[in-house]
Parts: sequence; structure tokens; C-alpha cells
Amino acid sequence: MDTTAAPFVLNLPVRFADVDHAGIVYYPRYFHLFHLALEEFLRSQLGAQGYRRLLDDEQLGFPTVSAQCDYRAPLRFGDLAEVLMIVAKRGQRSLTLGFRVHRLADDERPRALCAEGSTVCAIVDLAEFHAVPMPDKLAAVFGTLSSSF
Amino acid sequence: MDTTAAPFVLNLPVRFADVDHAGIVYYPRYFHLFHLALEEFLRSQLGAQGYRRLLDDEQLGFPTVSAQCDYRAPLRFGDLAEVLMIVAKRGQRSLTLGFRVHRLADDERPRALCAEGSTVCAIVDLAEFHAVPMPDKLAAVFGTLSSSF
Amino acid sequence: MDTTAAPFVLNLPVRFADVDHAGIVYYPRYFHLFHLALEEFLRSQLGAQGYRRLLDDEQLGFPTVSAQCDYRAPLRFGDLAEVLMIVAKRGQRSLTLGFRVHRLADDERPRALCAEGSTVCAIVDLAEFHAVPMPDKLAAVFGTLSSSF
Amino acid sequence: MDTTAAPFVLNLPVRFADVDHAGIVYYPRYFHLFHLALEEFLRSQLGAQGYRRLLDDEQLGFPTVSAQCDYRAPLRFGDLAEVLMIVAKRGQRSLTLGFRVHRLADDERPRALCAEGSTVCAIVDLAEFHAVPMPDKLAAVFGTLSSSF
Repeated sequence: MDTTAAPFVLNLPVRFADVDHAGIVYYPRYFHLFHLALEEFLRSQLGAQGYRRLLDDEQLGFPTVSAQCDYRAPLRFGDLAEVLMIVAKRGQRSLTLGFRVHRLADDERPRALCAEGSTVCAIVDLAEFHAVPMPDKLAAVFGTLSSSF
Repeated sequence: MDTTAAPFVLNLPVRFADVDHAGIVYYPRYFHLFHLALEEFLRSQLGAQGYRRLLDDEQLGFPTVSAQCDYRAPLRFGDLAEVLMIVAKRGQRSLTLGFRVHRLADDERPRALCAEGSTVCAIVDLAEFHAVPMPDKLAAVFGTLSSSF
Repeated sequence: MDTTAAPFVLNLPVRFADVDHAGIVYYPRYFHLFHLALEEFLRSQLGAQGYRRLLDDEQLGFPTVSAQCDYRAPLRFGDLAEVLMIVAKRGQRSLTLGFRVHRLADDERPRALCAEGSTVCAIVDLAEFHAVPMPDKLAAVFGTLSSSF
Repeated sequence: MDTTAAPFVLNLPVRFADVDHAGIVYYPRYFHLFHLALEEFLRSQLGAQGYRRLLDDEQLGFPTVSAQCDYRAPLRFGDLAEVLMIVAKRGQRSLTLGFRVHRLADDERPRALCAEGSTVCAIVDLAEFHAVPMPDKLAAVFGTLSSSF
């Protein structure tokens, strides 16, 4: 593994409508934050249309077959979220991505861990809809990510 | 027009995550309520897969080309919303749908008008992506709706 | 436990915008389906404003502290989803809810299991923001649910 | 008006789940893009917690009382959207914001106008819930925006 490998980092503000009636980010929303980190990572590696072309032109996808998240502290509107993504495990025909979501420090409060989770993605030939070994090109892309935080 | 024509009515509870940081239903969400009424209307007329088959099999769609809404009173979590839909106008290759969203009466408050809006949909051949006259089958479906509330 | 206890069942159509670019229901959306089942269950037991009053007036909440889901088969626009909810486990100050999402049989395909998951909710005094034993009233409400599917 | 006034510009990628079953950005989603531009504008002027403090601490809000949008061309997953925001009109107790959404040029296609819309926001004292004249501080903030594209 490349010694320069590191987690991918995505910073984004909590939006006005990310919250629920309890005034905190709606818990399913964290899985959306996980996916945004994956989308931005692929965009940084493959360009704006790269992920779409993988799906549409190369018929290669990585649907989520399992997802989990532990919630440590709430995020609220106005907070800045930092999403970290790693490759926790690389299987033959699957990929386990690890995620951490922090609230960044602001003038009132220190940085805090808000959530930790993971998703298992199958590597899938979308034409045949069966799992396939990860192509070298994708292995190289995900190889830029570290395997721990 | 059929003398039995009436607005289509969809009742649905305001959801825990429909609200924003101000504690009221996020304003873009009302356009989603409009679309849910259209989906449920088509489901009532054409069956669960009917709208999908129109799009996928018959390559007929009605994308929204214009949308507007006036907001009269807020909806909050716990409220029951009633969405009314009419055909405000039938053009040659388009359809103007009218919508009203009420808060239903509960043990604390009377029924109230929360929003009024409309959408203009083009009738589109999705294979060629140009507007076409509305097929008779669809005209019959939308003919069951009244043109006023 | 009440021998009449059974899973709570919520049927709902997959919506036009529930899907992602791959044409299947976006995976975070299943956690929203889980929450809709909880909301509808509480509405059936406590009335439309019941859940809101628990939160706002009684300062009692049950934030999700952990969530997981395994995905078995995709849901697509036009499908009818059936969400089942049980109380998998009742702790001193927490509740583990279990969920299954099926695609209902239609004229083309048989019923299928699409996802299985669970959430752990803390029982929380929102004024003090610490976990508390479940009040009798809530215990009675959740006692109407079975502990297996 | 400040001669340096200009539209506010927000660039953001179309997300994997922004689309509907027709494969284009779901039409209500454009109003969310409008709101994201407003949020980012206020963040650039008032800091991350600025908008929240206006609402929570100063009890000043600007709920949308009217919204409209005309759709010119679809946005798809992989496209980069550019959202422009201006102050189209400043009333005594209201503000009309104008928006344009473009698809940015990429290696396949030129820049294109996808949508144009506007929202009317009331300036509201949230404690009393009635419209009030815009405070000088907010007038200065919105004064940095031009009144045309």
C-alpha cells in the first residue's frame, strides 16, 4: 500500500433541512453523508462524470449490501461536519468502507466525534448483476485510501 | 366533462423529518407533496406499476416545465395534511395541475389552507424528447379530475 | 407479553424520487422507511399528535444510538414495500427495534425480502439529556409489538 | 448600491440521489438548490452559525411566502450545477430573491441554463410572528448582491 495513503476528508455544513423535529440531524441522513464522501472521493479521482461513466458505460457498480452506524453526539444546523472515509477491508468481490463524522471545532465548542459507521459494497457487473473481482483501475483508485483513521 | 369529476384527495401525516430548523415543513417539500398526489392519483387509475410503465414501456412522460406555490400557513410535525389536485387547464401538449394543501382539523385547531400552487407539465415522447398531443388514454385518466376546487 | 402481539405492518409505494441514478431505492432511504414505520406505529397507538407531545410536552425522546441494515434485493419505482417492525429487545433504558422490508407480490413477481435491519434507541429525558427507564405508558405501547417476525 | 455588487455563485455537483426514476434531477430539488445558495451566501457573510443565530437568538427569520421556477433543460447525475442568486426586489418587509441554475460546461457539452426562479421571503419577527422592516444589518448583507444577473 502506498505510504501516502490517508483517509479521504469531506467538510460540509449541516443544512437547514438536514434536521428533524428534535432539532438534530435525522439519523438516516448520516448514511447520505457517507455516500457524499464516496461521491466526492470518486470525483476527485475520476472527474465529475467518472462515477457515472463507470455505472453507465462500463456497467460496473458497487451497491451497498450492508450498512451500520453508531451515533455518539448530535449534529445541529450551523455545525460544520467533517466526514472521513477509509477502506477498512478489501475482499475478493467486495469493499468495506469505514466512516467517521466529526463536528468541527467552532468558537463555542471543541471538535467532537458524532458518528462512526461502515458500509459493505459488492463489486457488481451491472449487465449480468453478479459480483466480480475488482478491476485493477478501481483497485488503484481505492488504494489511495488508508485502512485506518 | 364528466359531472362526477372531483379533485383528487391525498391525506398524509407530516413526517418527523419533513421540517427544517425553524420547525415547520421545509418549503421545497410542498412540491414533493404535489408530486405525491400525482403519483397516488395515477396509482388509483392505472395500478401500482402504471406510471412506471407509461414512462418505461410507452416512453411517455410529463416533465414539469414550470411550478409555483404560495404559502399561507405553516405545517408542523404531527399535523395531518390534505393535498387536493385538479386539472386547472388542458393545453394541446401540456397540462396545468392545480394544488391546495390544507392542515386538517384536530382537537386543537380548525382546518386551514396552508399552500396553493400549480405545475405545468409537458406531454413528452421520451424517445424523441419532444412534446406530443396527449394520448386518449391519458386524457380519459385526467378527465376524471375536476377543473376547480 | 400479550399473546395478541404481532409485528407492526406499514405498506407504502416506492416513490418516484426514492431511487438513485442506478434506478433502485437509495440505500439510506431504507432507514427512513424504518422511521416511517415507527411514526405510523406511534400514530396508531397515540394519535396524530401523540409522538410530538411525547417529545415537546413530556420531554421524552428515543434517539437512535445505533442502526444497521442488510440489503437482500433492490426495490424499484412502482414496487409496493411492506415494512414490518418488532421489538427485538427491551433493555433497561433502551429499545432495540427490528425491521424487515419486503417487496409485495404483483402481477409479475412474487413477494421478496429486500432488507433486514435494526435500530437501538435510548430512552431519553430531553430536558436533562440522559437515559431514563422506560415509562409504563410507553412500555404498554411497545408491548403490543411481538419480539419476532 | 455598491458598484461591486454581484450575484452570489454556488457550484455543486448533482448527487447520486438527486435524480428521480426519469434519470433527471427531481423538480422540487431545484428549490432546495435555491435554499442552499441562500444558506451558503449567509454563511459567507455571517459565519457558520450566523443564520442559526439570527433565527434562534435574534428571533429574526425570512420564511418563503411564494416560490416559482421555470425549467429549461434537465440536470443529470455527474453534471456540475452553478446556482446564481440576486436580490430581484427589496420591499418594505419582504425580499424577492432571483435564481438561475446552469449546467457548467464539461468535455462533452457547453454551459446551459437549466432553470430560472424566484422566491419571496417575508422579514419576520419570530417571537411575535409578524412581518417587520428589514434590520440595517441584514440590509447591508443583502446589499452586497446585485439586482440583476
